[in-house]
Amino acid sequence: MKHFINAKNNIVTEALDGFLATTTTTGLARLDGYPHTKVIIRTDWDKSRVAVIAGGGSGHEPAHTGFVGEAMLTAAVCGEVFASPGVDAVLAAIIAVTGEAGCLLIVKNYTGDRLNFGLAAERANALGYRVEMVVVADDIAIPDADYPRGLAGTLFIHKIAGFMAARGDELDRIVTAARTAASRCYSIGLSLDSCTVPGNIPDDYLGPNEAELGLGIHGEPGFSKIAFAKADELMSLACEKLAQAAAPGPFALILNNLGTVPPVEMAILANAFTKTALAKKTTIIIGPAHLMTSLNMNGFSLSLLVLDDLRTAALRADVGASSWPGIRVCDQIRVVELPKTAQDKSYRPSRNETVEAIIRAVCEMLISAEDELNFLDSRIGDGDTGTTFGRAARTIADALNDLPCADGGDLSMALSTILSRNMGGSSGVLLAILFMAAGKAYKKNNDWPLALFHGARRMMQYGGADVGDRTMLDALMPGLDRLMPNGSMASESIPGESMAAAALAARAGANSTALMTTACAGRASYVQAENLAGVTDPGAEAIARIFETVAVVIRKRGPA
Amino acid sequence: MKHFINAKNNIVTEALDGFLATTTTTGLARLDGYPHTKVIIRTDWDKSRVAVIAGGGSGHEPAHTGFVGEAMLTAAVCGEVFASPGVDAVLAAIIAVTGEAGCLLIVKNYTGDRLNFGLAAERANALGYRVEMVVVADDIAIPDADYPRGLAGTLFIHKIAGFMAARGDELDRIVTAARTAASRCYSIGLSLDSCTVPGNIPDDYLGPNEAELGLGIHGEPGFSKIAFAKADELMSLACEKLAQAAAPGPFALILNNLGTVPPVEMAILANAFTKTALAKKTTIIIGPAHLMTSLNMNGFSLSLLVLDDLRTAALRADVGASSWPGIRVCDQIRVVELPKTAQDKSYRPSRNETVEAIIRAVCEMLISAEDELNFLDSRIGDGDTGTTFGRAARTIADALNDLPCADGGDLSMALSTILSRNMGGSSGVLLAILFMAAGKAYKKNNDWPLALFHGARRMMQYGGADVGDRTMLDALMPGLDRLMPNGSMASESIPGESMAAAALAARAGANSTALMTTACAGRASYVQAENLAGVTDPGAEAIARIFETVAVVIRKRGPA
Repeated sequence: MKHFINAKNNIVTEALDGFLATTTTTGLARLDGYPHTKVIIRTDWDKSRVAVIAGGGSGHEPAHTGFVGEAMLTAAVCGEVFASPGVDAVLAAIIAVTGEAGCLLIVKNYTGDRLNFGLAAERANALGYRVEMVVVADDIAIPDADYPRGLAGTLFIHKIAGFMAARGDELDRIVTAARTAASRCYSIGLSLDSCTVPGNIPDDYLGPNEAELGLGIHGEPGFSKIAFAKADELMSLACEKLAQAAAPGPFALILNNLGTVPPVEMAILANAFTKTALAKKTTIIIGPAHLMTSLNMNGFSLSLLVLDDLRTAALRADVGASSWPGIRVCDQIRVVELPKTAQDKSYRPSRNETVEAIIRAVCEMLISAEDELNFLDSRIGDGDTGTTFGRAARTIADALNDLPCADGGDLSMALSTILSRNMGGSSGVLLAILFMAAGKAYKKNNDWPLALFHGARRMMQYGGADVGDRTMLDALMPGLDRLMPNGSMASESIPGESMAAAALAARAGANSTALMTTACAGRASYVQAENLAGVTDPGAEAIARIFETVAVVIRKRGPA
Repeated sequence: MKHFINAKNNIVTEALDGFLATTTTTGLARLDGYPHTKVIIRTDWDKSRVAVIAGGGSGHEPAHTGFVGEAMLTAAVCGEVFASPGVDAVLAAIIAVTGEAGCLLIVKNYTGDRLNFGLAAERANALGYRVEMVVVADDIAIPDADYPRGLAGTLFIHKIAGFMAARGDELDRIVTAARTAASRCYSIGLSLDSCTVPGNIPDDYLGPNEAELGLGIHGEPGFSKIAFAKADELMSLACEKLAQAAAPGPFALILNNLGTVPPVEMAILANAFTKTALAKKTTIIIGPAHLMTSLNMNGFSLSLLVLDDLRTAALRADVGASSWPGIRVCDQIRVVELPKTAQDKSYRPSRNETVEAIIRAVCEMLISAEDELNFLDSRIGDGDTGTTFGRAARTIADALNDLPCADGGDLSMALSTILSRNMGGSSGVLLAILFMAAGKAYKKNNDWPLALFHGARRMMQYGGADVGDRTMLDALMPGLDRLMPNGSMASESIPGESMAAAALAARAGANSTALMTTACAGRASYVQAENLAGVTDPGAEAIARIFETVAVVIRKRGPA
């Protein structure tokens, strides 16, 4: 198991310094006294309000440091990975932030935390501080457990206590509210793999078809092994367990990432939750987010809190702690109708015999060249250039009677649409771009060479290739260049001599690709030089043949 | 490889619905048209400002949907996992959000994205929309690459364009600023394992001592395999690569979680970054956070942006998009001095012969009982109860001359401190709690039984055990009960007869633990019933012997 750490002994202090260096929460500091004292405190704190301190072993980030900030925690006391902080560190935190209003310690129900925070509270009391402690025991995995574990539901208590402290409530009132809320809080975890403490040997006792339900946050085995299943089924199972244990709603839900579930899968789990019966009783969702993790555990936990007015107000309130993700009030997903104009323009069919003759001839040529082009492509790629061009040619030939052949701009755009929908591959989209841009340009200038040149430049811009990169551009650009000897020549029709010269230039360009032994774009760029030598690029070959075919038709019939 | 999914074909639509159901960004909707059209848009958008649209294949969550919101993206167009969205979906997004001010498409430099977004732009242009496209190619892994990939640096461009659009800048100005920023943006990735597309077979080509540098976000192998090393070394390597490629600073940095690095390790990486030469030129940090992931890749990426006034202002600005983590202006970590009062009170040594005789006798007894108690504990636990009590006894015996033996309150608190620092184990902390609370109570009432009873109740509260749970409480509570026949009896001294009766009660209580075959607290709670039968709890045995020893001393000497 590889981890991004330096040394097992420095995990927590380095992570705390990394947190302090990058957190967006303002006004945080640490108490001096590494490595024993690992305490993050607010420095913008005036002690006139009740201090709220939480903490415990590390490995649960962003808990607890990420929740230190205005209207949430005043300080977080961190132990080593999965180990309670010592009494002296807790006491130091209490003394650093506690004034006359007193202090509330929020502790998850683990013996080490209870005892160390408890002794610190007693010592602080002996020193004259008012300190109270609330223990959160929200795990419902083990039926009739005497000592349910504290899990991510603890965050509800942080939020409620932090909210009350921020608005100036007194310690006794906060303690009562926090304790009552803790008794209305229910959590369960589900994981596909266990977690590994950095430096330890991974102990993945779950097989490829197993998951586990009812786990803690310290890598201990879950309450029950279950069969691995679809996200919806796993979520449903966890929700049923929760619903059995919980009081009636309405609820707030925390959907917590236990460590390494990718964001896309957490979103699928969130969607799975919306399909459960429990979702109907849930009015507020928090997450999916990393809130109370268990190192690299590939799992999630659900925590429910029974809502009342106070708790709802507390959860809604803004905080200054960077890791609190905010709440979402549950409602329907909004679906907006697809814009009507996203449909393509429809064109009126029109006739132009020369244009139709050119299109027909090019299509026939491409269909008959299919095998040859495929063969060329098989030398440098996946052997489908012929099929791709052939498919486009067949579709266009079939659509010929419906095309606006008398309107160059509309025709070019219509060809673009057909190519984008039917040709496939990058070359289909590239040529669709060319004809779409050319159509727009043609409408302005009624100049085919200029329009095609404009289209080709757009194609280069989006495709990223240039002449010399061993693509169809090596035939296309020399051909188009020859059609526009003086840069731009406004002409609705192309004379036969120009077209013949253009065809020769395109052919020379295509042939030159056989000499290019490095391809910088397209699929051939992944092929070794020795395999490219002597093979004409199939895209360039197709373009050269198109130019040649057009030249033959124009020589026979005169310009369109 | 286990994933939280339902079916490979539904990954993206389900994740989008899960996102929409839980995001805290307000006013989002999706366009109708699943599964082909997967577009998230702002509904609170009036089209008088330039629309900013991004997108690409999925599997990079929270990119791009998490960045849709006020002052960032207007819409996100999502493809299937690692596959570009189709032209029609992009066009639908453009039409849904674009008004007279026009639209900017921000695209990562992958052929599929360039072509599909490019063709959509051309089609939108042909329909009369002003649409421009900026391609981000921030990957610096491959020297002299013709087509550098687009990585997490793309987020800088989202933020800058979104900021300018929100303040009403015109399209041309935004395009220029976005393009210039994109050319001043540099990224590199480093991973410990490859990613797995759900449903595919994992292809982890990296050995346990290998990592890779210069990777994309689609699971393709990195530019170079490197040796797995400490976090500081890996970070330093990535930073050197970046520094070589980048223009001079000052920089903003994105520290991006590529998928499954646990939060604690990302914090260690953040700390590692602060030690590099590059950190000195970095004035703004964004992250660590999940920003542009690659499914479940266990790696991170770094992205640098050269800052100027506009870019700094843009990065600082607030946004309505839930996944933008905000920025951190780099500065020193603040370290606050440990509060002085956290040191324990020092006590003035004082003499009381009876008290000293009691303490000396109890310590001698516990030292001599060490093996017996260890033996009892070996039957139900790890066999160290005797050692634990013995260690405490030796420390107290050694400290006897320095103890405030004439002041019951101070003495009790001093014993608490010694026990918490030297005894070890849960029982050390538990007894420290007892003596700390007892000391405080004694100062009020000068009543040993009452003080100890109060301390014992505190111990029960923090420890969570009760009488009958097979712990030292089973000897302690009956013993203390017998000392306070009428609830509370203010008495500075304990008469010999009471003490003798208390010792008998404690002994009976200790013996009763041998009959308890279920332990509800402490380590014995993990032991099967048949192994508990007939074994006296070693903690209860120690307490009973303490009562007996005290009774003998008092009978000999009279009350203290």
